Amino acid sequence: MTRPLPIIHEVRRHQGDPHRVVEELDLEFSNGERRLYHRAPASEHGAVIVVPMLDDETALLIREYAAGTHRYELGLVKGKIDAGETPEEAANRELKEEAGYGARSLTVLRRISLAPTYMGHETILVLARDLYEERLPGDEPEQLDVLPWKLDALHELILAEDFSEGRSIAALFLVREWLRYADAK
Amino acid sequence: MTRPLPIIHEVRRHQGDPHRVVEELDLEFSNGERRLYHRAPASEHGAVIVVPMLDDETALLIREYAAGTHRYELGLVKGKIDAGETPEEAANRELKEEAGYGARSLTVLRRISLAPTYMGHETILVLARDLYEERLPGDEPEQLDVLPWKLDALHELILAEDFSEGRSIAALFLVREWLRYADAK
Repeated sequence: MTRPLPIIHEVRRHQGDPHRVVEELDLEFSNGERRLYHRAPASEHGAVIVVPMLDDETALLIREYAAGTHRYELGLVKGKIDAGETPEEAANRELKEEAGYGARSLTVLRRISLAPTYMGHETILVLARDLYEERLPGDEPEQLDVLPWKLDALHELILAEDFSEGRSIAALFLVREWLRYADAK
Repeated sequence: MTRPLPIIHEVRRHQGDPHRVVEELDLEFSNGERRLYHRAPASEHGAVIVVPMLDDETALLIREYAAGTHRYELGLVKGKIDAGETPEEAANRELKEEAGYGARSLTVLRRISLAPTYMGHETILVLARDLYEERLPGDEPEQLDVLPWKLDALHELILAEDFSEGRSIAALFLVREWLRYADAK
């Protein structure tokens, strides 16, 4: 199941990313304190993170190469919202591209921020249910492994070092709570 | 309880952050696909996120101004590890600076990554117990509100729009699972 890591042929280091805008804020707090803060504004159309449910108890994870940590990471389907797309449409497209499934039921649950003290990025959490097989070509360099995981076994998943992303951990627990309390109503 | 938001006197926009290094990776996947990936490498000494337990059931949250989303956010004590500090020492210092408590018991639970596909940043989750009152001066512009929250009421907390950070949501659920399964042993 484990794939060899990609070979790094070269690493080039730049001072700063010319494609990314940084904002400097001149702030005055209510106690009169004045400070300069820096922040990275959100990307144009936002992003989605998707919890696809194969049945009432089983979520689908993906395993994807992560350049930031240079290892294959377990996580959830994610991606940017394209111009003109709703969050639900973006979630369904990414689900087809990354996991080979479409969903007949898509529910926006809430927004999850990345590092709100210095980044504007927010990701919309979408619950995807009533799945059917359909694959769309994406921009991934290789087809991703898809891994079913029972929501009542999250205490085992969180012991995995390569299941590390805060948003993915948060999203699975949020969906588990949501399903419990929505069912209880 | 809600404080007025700081006044934004001015916003200056830069193309890229000269203080932040970006790496460009020339990658070859095991199927022969060759791609250029960009990533932001991790900060020098890493960072900690702290779940302080006032008693066996009650975690302490803080409310802090977040420039990224320009609102007061509920979240956890966090901060960078200084040169020469262990994660436990950094957690205890940040806890004293941000919440006005020290801890006699500090336990590293796991690493949480931010956005591993394009960022190297990882935060070490530290559980802090056996608290005592002690405040250290920090670099915050104002004293932060501290809010106790029962771990069996996380399903209510996650409905709060201003409790949005993926790492903070993940950290509270991770601690709740850890305490449940550690107690069961």
